[in-house]
Amino acid sequence: MSQKSGKISRRTLLGGVIAAAVLPVGNLLAIGNSKPQLPAVADDPTKTPGPGPSPLGRRSPFENPVRKPSDISSRTPLQDMHSTITPADLHFERHHAGVPTIDPAKHELLIHGLVGTAMKFTLADLKKFPSVTRICFIECAGNFRTGKEEMTPQDILGLTSQSEWTGVMLSTIFNEVGIDPTAKWFLAEGSDAAVMTRTIPLAKAWDDAMIVYAQNGEAIRPEQGYPMRLLLPGFEGNMNIKWLRRIELSEEPYMTREETSKYTYPVKDKIRMFSFELDARSIITYPSYPAKIAKGYVQIRGLAWSGRGKVNQVEVSTDKGQSWQKAVLQEPVLSKAHTYFRFDWDWNGEATEILSRVTDETGYLQPTLKQLIEARGPNIGGYHMNPVTTWQIKQDGSVLFKPEPLK
Amino acid sequence: MSQKSGKISRRTLLGGVIAAAVLPVGNLLAIGNSKPQLPAVADDPTKTPGPGPSPLGRRSPFENPVRKPSDISSRTPLQDMHSTITPADLHFERHHAGVPTIDPAKHELLIHGLVGTAMKFTLADLKKFPSVTRICFIECAGNFRTGKEEMTPQDILGLTSQSEWTGVMLSTIFNEVGIDPTAKWFLAEGSDAAVMTRTIPLAKAWDDAMIVYAQNGEAIRPEQGYPMRLLLPGFEGNMNIKWLRRIELSEEPYMTREETSKYTYPVKDKIRMFSFELDARSIITYPSYPAKIAKGYVQIRGLAWSGRGKVNQVEVSTDKGQSWQKAVLQEPVLSKAHTYFRFDWDWNGEATEILSRVTDETGYLQPTLKQLIEARGPNIGGYHMNPVTTWQIKQDGSVLFKPEPLK
Repeated sequence: MSQKSGKISRRTLLGGVIAAAVLPVGNLLAIGNSKPQLPAVADDPTKTPGPGPSPLGRRSPFENPVRKPSDISSRTPLQDMHSTITPADLHFERHHAGVPTIDPAKHELLIHGLVGTAMKFTLADLKKFPSVTRICFIECAGNFRTGKEEMTPQDILGLTSQSEWTGVMLSTIFNEVGIDPTAKWFLAEGSDAAVMTRTIPLAKAWDDAMIVYAQNGEAIRPEQGYPMRLLLPGFEGNMNIKWLRRIELSEEPYMTREETSKYTYPVKDKIRMFSFELDARSIITYPSYPAKIAKGYVQIRGLAWSGRGKVNQVEVSTDKGQSWQKAVLQEPVLSKAHTYFRFDWDWNGEATEILSRVTDETGYLQPTLKQLIEARGPNIGGYHMNPVTTWQIKQDGSVLFKPEPLK
Repeated sequence: MSQKSGKISRRTLLGGVIAAAVLPVGNLLAIGNSKPQLPAVADDPTKTPGPGPSPLGRRSPFENPVRKPSDISSRTPLQDMHSTITPADLHFERHHAGVPTIDPAKHELLIHGLVGTAMKFTLADLKKFPSVTRICFIECAGNFRTGKEEMTPQDILGLTSQSEWTGVMLSTIFNEVGIDPTAKWFLAEGSDAAVMTRTIPLAKAWDDAMIVYAQNGEAIRPEQGYPMRLLLPGFEGNMNIKWLRRIELSEEPYMTREETSKYTYPVKDKIRMFSFELDARSIITYPSYPAKIAKGYVQIRGLAWSGRGKVNQVEVSTDKGQSWQKAVLQEPVLSKAHTYFRFDWDWNGEATEILSRVTDETGYLQPTLKQLIEARGPNIGGYHMNPVTTWQIKQDGSVLFKPEPLK
């Protein structure tokens, strides 16, 4: 699955960076088993045995990745991430009344309404059913910020993260309770103090919806809905109800607060509701603010994803959007999943702008902010914002976000 | 990528487990937007807002997965894992003089010997090169324990874990320094107090070897070699030198301690050295000791892997090895990677034994312990042990390991 490079010319790669580090070769060509005379290193770690094995590992004291919390959410440091799985403790949060502490032995999921037999399921019950695993992203529908140049990917769109989720297909559980033929929607309700509630079309249950209890191999984290959450691959984050305690089958949507006064947005002179799928989106995470680059080889890297299926291609422009070239996608490319892309660039040292755009398997091309405004009208900005993100490269190599006007 | 089930008959699935939980349907069929009368729940989490977002998440207080540490290693709790990515703090450890604390700003990797130009690379230097990402397992060559019935998968073979690794292809770096045509091997040396050292055939560098600095998206953990380790997909764990500080190109292997007095094993009247690839292996992780099962539907689950490529198939026997049936492999199936398998079983309540065996893409079939002893002779047991693991199912549903004689 790994890619091989080796097409970059040696000398352009490092430039002068480590020329000074070349050592006197004669001294170092030690032969056989003996240790060569290595240059003295301060604090040589080979001189003192370190601490032994431990029940739980910890990060190096030199590494301190953190989410950026606000009152209602915290954001994944995407600029620090080298691949697609988000460590569970760095998964973004968005909740409406804090994180409840739930005893899994007391928690129950009730399924009722237009069903054959209303039933309650404990966590232990759910674990008896056939389990499945899926890698996919979850993104908040309101994942867009702008306004100043000093913004990182975390600041702009850190409300997206990815996990390897395990649980049971919702269709398996719906087959268990039996669904009335008149049912067309189902309500999902959380056990948080907001009693977060959304209605979802029944078709999603027969497609790929899951109830998940594990994240990256272990029990789902409290901020992600412990002991169980709804997983609706590709649908806006808030619908993936956390701390799931109740599902009610119905003929019509329930028109809850979160699908009427919230999570709706203006499209010209109308309000769009029930816009479930997240549109395809991409962002360059390196180089991005506050990185600084040097003339010569730069590997441009980033993430692309779509709520509608696989990423088909990612294109990168290094000339302000005048021309585009295909980036390399890291395999495996999975449906409704963060896909890492890379693009080899030889920066000539002149100020420019770099940007990325994704096309998903439906043929949808990520729009510019201008195109979004043209399509939706001037009151844009609340939800489902997926514009191309532009980074300014200054002549000194510093990188700044390019905030574009919302009107 | 997810699998759908739905082929299990409803009634067999849950048996009597939640029959008592069926509620009076009339009371619960609330219509429209109003909340139905839910049964009273002690400690209702909806009555109190929980704590808000945080910089780093923590596990639920009800979940405490831990590695099992000894003086020299700690083992991943495979029986607690629901999929293939190992959370970084639960990745197994095996080190020879503890975990060094390394300042990445001071750490340097020297590459010398039969090279065009000896060079040193800092972590920042390595990050300038084209990066690649690969999901693969690392397994200790000595990953085998037996001896009593009360053993978990963690006890038996917890010295294998899997991560999403990111770094640079070793071939990229070797192209940078230039490799002398006479070079056939390279020595890799760690910065731990053991100065752990192994020699590796140069062909592995041109194939898929990497120097990695990231694990599951973030900086590699201290126990895994922070700030950089060698990654040799499919090769025995100790060769994936951690805290990598030196690589020396040579014509011959260096015959270090760890490839002569250690990490070798008897095969009849000879000693096998330099046996790099880990043979294909599988284990049922559920049900396993100390789980207890009930009559009826049981989803058998486990892990399979091979150091030589992809898992081709996993077979499960529920009748002491008399007959075998194919398990379902979780997609995506990746080369040299832990592959999760599942098998639907209807337990008739009688005592039996369940076991799994894997075939990899080379056609190699995982052997029984008896076959291993026949092939290698009576002094078996040190390294590269990959026998079929058998679990005894007792009539009361309890599950015990079946330790088999080593002679």
